Amino acid sequence: MRTTEHPTVPPRHSSPGSDAGRVTRIVVVGGVAGGMSCAARARRLDESVEIIVLERGAHVSFASCGLPYYVGGEIADVESLLVQTPERLRAALNLDVRTGCEVTALDPAARQVVVRTPHGEDRLGYDALVLSPGAAAFRPAIDGLDSPRVRTLRTVEDAVVLRKSVESGARRAVVLGAGFIGLEAAEALAQQGLSTAVVELAEQVLPQLDAEHAWLVEEELTRLGVEVHTGTAATRVVVGPDSDTVVLDDGTQLPADIVVLAVGVRPDTGAFEAAGVRCERGAIVVDEHGRTSLDRVWAVGDATVSIDPVTGVRRPVALAGPANRAGRLVADAMLRPDSARPIPQPLGTAIVRVGRLTAAMTGASRAALDTAGVDYVTLHLHPNQHAGYFPGSAQIHLSVHVRAGDGLLLGAQAVGVDGVDKRIDVIVTAIRARMAVTDLIDLDLAYSPPYGQAKDAVNLAGMVGQNVLDGTLRLWYPQELETVLESALVLDVRSRDEVRTGHLPGSLNIPHTELREHLDDVAAAAVGRPVRVLCASGVRSAIAHRVLAQAGFDSASLSGGMLTLRAALGRDASRVLRTGEPPQPALPPDHRPDQAPNQTPKESS
Amino acid sequence: MRTTEHPTVPPRHSSPGSDAGRVTRIVVVGGVAGGMSCAARARRLDESVEIIVLERGAHVSFASCGLPYYVGGEIADVESLLVQTPERLRAALNLDVRTGCEVTALDPAARQVVVRTPHGEDRLGYDALVLSPGAAAFRPAIDGLDSPRVRTLRTVEDAVVLRKSVESGARRAVVLGAGFIGLEAAEALAQQGLSTAVVELAEQVLPQLDAEHAWLVEEELTRLGVEVHTGTAATRVVVGPDSDTVVLDDGTQLPADIVVLAVGVRPDTGAFEAAGVRCERGAIVVDEHGRTSLDRVWAVGDATVSIDPVTGVRRPVALAGPANRAGRLVADAMLRPDSARPIPQPLGTAIVRVGRLTAAMTGASRAALDTAGVDYVTLHLHPNQHAGYFPGSAQIHLSVHVRAGDGLLLGAQAVGVDGVDKRIDVIVTAIRARMAVTDLIDLDLAYSPPYGQAKDAVNLAGMVGQNVLDGTLRLWYPQELETVLESALVLDVRSRDEVRTGHLPGSLNIPHTELREHLDDVAAAAVGRPVRVLCASGVRSAIAHRVLAQAGFDSASLSGGMLTLRAALGRDASRVLRTGEPPQPALPPDHRPDQAPNQTPKESS
Repeated sequence: MRTTEHPTVPPRHSSPGSDAGRVTRIVVVGGVAGGMSCAARARRLDESVEIIVLERGAHVSFASCGLPYYVGGEIADVESLLVQTPERLRAALNLDVRTGCEVTALDPAARQVVVRTPHGEDRLGYDALVLSPGAAAFRPAIDGLDSPRVRTLRTVEDAVVLRKSVESGARRAVVLGAGFIGLEAAEALAQQGLSTAVVELAEQVLPQLDAEHAWLVEEELTRLGVEVHTGTAATRVVVGPDSDTVVLDDGTQLPADIVVLAVGVRPDTGAFEAAGVRCERGAIVVDEHGRTSLDRVWAVGDATVSIDPVTGVRRPVALAGPANRAGRLVADAMLRPDSARPIPQPLGTAIVRVGRLTAAMTGASRAALDTAGVDYVTLHLHPNQHAGYFPGSAQIHLSVHVRAGDGLLLGAQAVGVDGVDKRIDVIVTAIRARMAVTDLIDLDLAYSPPYGQAKDAVNLAGMVGQNVLDGTLRLWYPQELETVLESALVLDVRSRDEVRTGHLPGSLNIPHTELREHLDDVAAAAVGRPVRVLCASGVRSAIAHRVLAQAGFDSASLSGGMLTLRAALGRDASRVLRTGEPPQPALPPDHRPDQAPNQTPKESS
Repeated sequence: MRTTEHPTVPPRHSSPGSDAGRVTRIVVVGGVAGGMSCAARARRLDESVEIIVLERGAHVSFASCGLPYYVGGEIADVESLLVQTPERLRAALNLDVRTGCEVTALDPAARQVVVRTPHGEDRLGYDALVLSPGAAAFRPAIDGLDSPRVRTLRTVEDAVVLRKSVESGARRAVVLGAGFIGLEAAEALAQQGLSTAVVELAEQVLPQLDAEHAWLVEEELTRLGVEVHTGTAATRVVVGPDSDTVVLDDGTQLPADIVVLAVGVRPDTGAFEAAGVRCERGAIVVDEHGRTSLDRVWAVGDATVSIDPVTGVRRPVALAGPANRAGRLVADAMLRPDSARPIPQPLGTAIVRVGRLTAAMTGASRAALDTAGVDYVTLHLHPNQHAGYFPGSAQIHLSVHVRAGDGLLLGAQAVGVDGVDKRIDVIVTAIRARMAVTDLIDLDLAYSPPYGQAKDAVNLAGMVGQNVLDGTLRLWYPQELETVLESALVLDVRSRDEVRTGHLPGSLNIPHTELREHLDDVAAAAVGRPVRVLCASGVRSAIAHRVLAQAGFDSASLSGGMLTLRAALGRDASRVLRTGEPPQPALPPDHRPDQAPNQTPKESS
C-alpha cells in the first residue's frame, strides 16, 4: 500500500493571520453536497463572514442520490427531494444562496468570478473561492443522443421528465451504462412496469465489482425482468416518430420510449481550467486541505482529484460522502487554517440496492490491485447474516482482499439480501484503522440471534485470513480452474446429493465426514497429482484440507467453494459443470456416504 | 483508560516443546460455546490428538441465545436449536463428545478429572484440560423459588418446559430481572399472549444501559403490554394450588402461572476452585492465553475473569462471542504456543431486540466510567438511519462517551427501530482500533438512500465530538437541569408549535431562524445569567449556540435536545415540562416566528 504524496505543492496561500488574508466574503460555486457543506460549516464557524452560494441549477442541496427512487415511484413526492431551499438556508444560516447563477469565468488576478444570472452577467469579488462544480454526464460520440427521448439522471428536472414519461405511457426503456446509477435507473423503470434493458461496455454489470459479485447482481436483474447486455456498446440511437431504437455493436436493436444515459461522469471544470486552475484529465488538483493551484481558491467534490489510499491511484471520486466531508474541512481550512484537519483520502465505498439484493464494496477491487501490482490474497466466505436457526437467515457473499505477508486489509466486497451494509461498514472502519485481517477476529461485534452470529461474518473473515497467512489453510481460486482440471485431482467433499446438482468433470466425491478412512482412495485417485478440494462454501473443504495436509498431501481448498466458483463462471457454469453421479471411491458396504451424517457444519475457522 | 496487567502470573506451564509437555489428550469440560470452539479448533490444528468433550447437559453446542425465541414461538422447532450433535461432531471433526457427563472433581497432581457419567463415576486423564463450565443462574435467597412454576431460561429443557406451560394455558407470567435475557423472556411470553410483568431491582430496565436509553426500552415494553416494576425486588413467591403469587418489596402482589428467574448468573466453578484453580469471586483467573493457575489447565468463557479494556475493571463476561473467541485462542495456545495470539479483552458489546426496537451498547457505560473515575464527555444524537426522504426513515438515538481532552472513544449506546446494530458495530471497530471520536468523521461508510446518509450517524457523532473537544460547541446535560433552571435562562429555539407540546418552565422561545435579530431580547431576558439553549435534537441549538457564543453570550446547547431530556426524565417528564404557550420576546409585526421558515435542518455539524 503506497500513500502517494501530492506531487504538486500549490503556491503558499496568503497568510490568514495577516490583514491581507482575512476572509470577509466567501463565494461558493455549486450548491449541492460539498459546496453546501462548506457554506454551512463556514457560517457555523464565523457569523460575520459574507457567504454567497452560486448554483447554476434551479435547486440547491437536492437529494441527487434519491432521483432514481422518485422515478421508480418509491419516493412519491418530488418535494421531498428538495432537502433545502435558499429561503430556509437564509433563515437558519444566513447564507446568500442564488440559484440559476452559472459561473462562466474566473479572474484570479482581480479575485472575481463572472456569473451568468437570470438578470444578465455579473462580476462578483471574493476573498475565498470554493469550487464545487461537480461532474457532468459523459456523452459518448454516438449519433442520436440528442433525441428528446434520451435523458441523463442527474437533476430533479431529469427525474421529473422521466417519471412523466413513465406516467404518460412509456413501455420500453434502455439504460446505457450498468454502473450504480444505471442499475438504480433500470430497477426503477422495471419497477414501473417498463420492459427494460441495460447495456454495458464492460463484460459485467457494475464494473467496479469483482466478477463473482457482479454475476449475482446480474442474476438478480434477470429475476427483476431487466434484460442485460454486457460486453457491448450502443453504436447509435435511431430516432423514430413514436419511439427510438438503440443499436448495439453486436447488432441488437432495442426499441425504447425512454433512453437513460448513465455511462459515467466527467469533472465539469472547463471554466476553471481556462483560468489557470491546475487540472489533471479535467479534474482539479488539490492539496490535503482542498487548495487549488490558485491563491485563495479551494475545490471539493466530484470535480477534484483524490488519491486512493490503497493503491495510490489519482482519480476523481464522485460520491456524496467524501464531497460533504471535504466541504466541511475546506471551511475549516479557510477559517481556521492552523487547526484544520486534512481531507481524508476516500476509500470509494459504494453500495447499491438491486431488487432484493444489496451489493457493496470498499477499498480496492481485484482489478485495481492487479493494475497497481499489489501482492494480495483474496478470501471468500458465505456466512449467514444472523443465526441460522433464527427466521430469515440468509447468506452474505463476502470477499476480502488482504496484502500478502502481513494481511493488511485492502478491500472488501459483499452481496446479499441482508446485513451487507453492516459488514462493509465495519471493514471500512478497519481499513481506515489500517488493521490486518487477523484483527477482525478480535472485534466484539454485537451478537444476538436477530442481528448476527457469535462468530460474525467479519470475525470469520479474520479467522480464514489468519489461517491462510500462517499456512494452516491453503486456497485455490476459480481463476486457476483450467490448470487444476488439467493437472490436479479435484476432491469434492460435499454430500452425494449436493454433488449431483453440479460438479467439476473428473472430480472424486468423498464427503468430508468419510475422508479420514478414505485417504488411501484419495492417494490412489491422485496418482501423484496435487489434490484440490472443494465443498459448497469452503468450510468443509477447509476441514478436509487440514486432514489431507497433515496426511502429507499437496492440498488446497477452493476459496468460497462451489458458490464462488459458480458465480465466477457466470453463464459458463452450465457448460463447465456436470450433473449426475460423480466418481466415488469403492466403499465397504457399512460406509455408504449417504447413510453417514454429513450435515453442513456452521462456518467456523 | 487503564490497561491493567494481570496481577498474577500463573506458574510456567511445562514447555510444550519437551516430550513431557506433548499434548496427546485434550479434555474439555463443557460442550457449549467456548469449550466446543476450542475442541473444534484443536482438531483442525492437530489430527492426531485425542479430544474428549464432557458436557453435563443433554446437548452440546445448542443455541442458548435462541431459547427465548423458541419460548415466544418465533422459532417453531426445538430441533433447530440443536446446532450440533455428538454424532455429527464425531463424523466431521473426530471429537469424542460425551453428554450427561459432569466433572465433579479435579486432581491436578494425577492430571485427572472425576466424572459423574450416566454409567457411574469415572476418572479421566488429560495432558491438557480446558475448563468451560459456564455460569449458573443466580438464585436469590427468597422463599418459594423452589416452586415448580419458577424456571430459569438457560437450557433447552428450560425452554421446552416454558413453551409447554404456555401451550397448556398459562395466562400470567412474572419475569424476575430486566437484563437482556429477562427482557427477551418477557417479550416472548407477552408475544404468546400472556399477561406479563417484569421486576427489576435497579431503577431502570437494562441496568447496563444509560438511563436515557433504558427509558426508551421501558416505553416499548409498555407498548407491548408488559408491566414494568423497577426499583423493587421480589421478596417471596407464595406457592398456591393453581398459581403462584410473586410478592414485591413495595407490597405489590403479582399472580403468576409462570415465573422466570433471570436476575443474573454466577460462574459455576466450585469443583475447580476446590482443586486449587485460582478464582476471584468465583470466576477463574486466567492469563492472556487462557492459562489458569494450574499447570496444563486452561479456562474460557463465562466462568473466567476478563479485564474491561476501557476501565480496567476485572469481571466475568457472559457473552457468546468472547467465549468462542477465547476457545479458539486457547486451542492455539495449547497446540501452537509459540505463535498463539493473546485473547483480546472483551468490550462487552451487547444487543437486544425489544418489540420494534433494538438496544445495543459497547464499551463503558456512564456508570462504569463514573465508578472508574474517568474524565469523559458524552455526545447525544438522533440522526436518521437512512436518508430522511427515503421511505421508512427513523431516528437512531445514539450516545457516545469520549475521553475528555483527546476524545478517545470509550463507549457507545444506541436505541432505534433500524440501523442500530450497524452503528454500534462500526464504533466497536473504532474502539478496538483506539480511534478518537474525531476519526469517526473520516469513515467512508457505505451510502445510498436505503442504507444511510451522506453524513452517517457515526460521522455526525465525530463532527459533534470534534466541535465539543475544540470548544466550537459547548454542551449542557439533563443531569444539570436543576442548576440550569435555578440560575440560567433557558432559550428554546424550536418552532412555537413544537414548544407547545412541552417546554421547560421559565424558558424563552425564539426559533433559531429568528435568533440573529433578537439577540437584544435574549440579553434582556438573561439579565446577566448564562443562556442554556435547547431544541428537539441538538442540531438547531448548536447553530444557535454558535450565534450566541460569537455574540459574547455564556451559552451552551442541550446535548441531544428535548428528545434526550425527555428520555432522561423518564416518567418525571410530565411533572417537569409545561405545555401551552411559553414566553416569547416582543416581536415587530413583520417577524412573527410562525410565519418564518423554521424547517428542522438536517443533522449537520
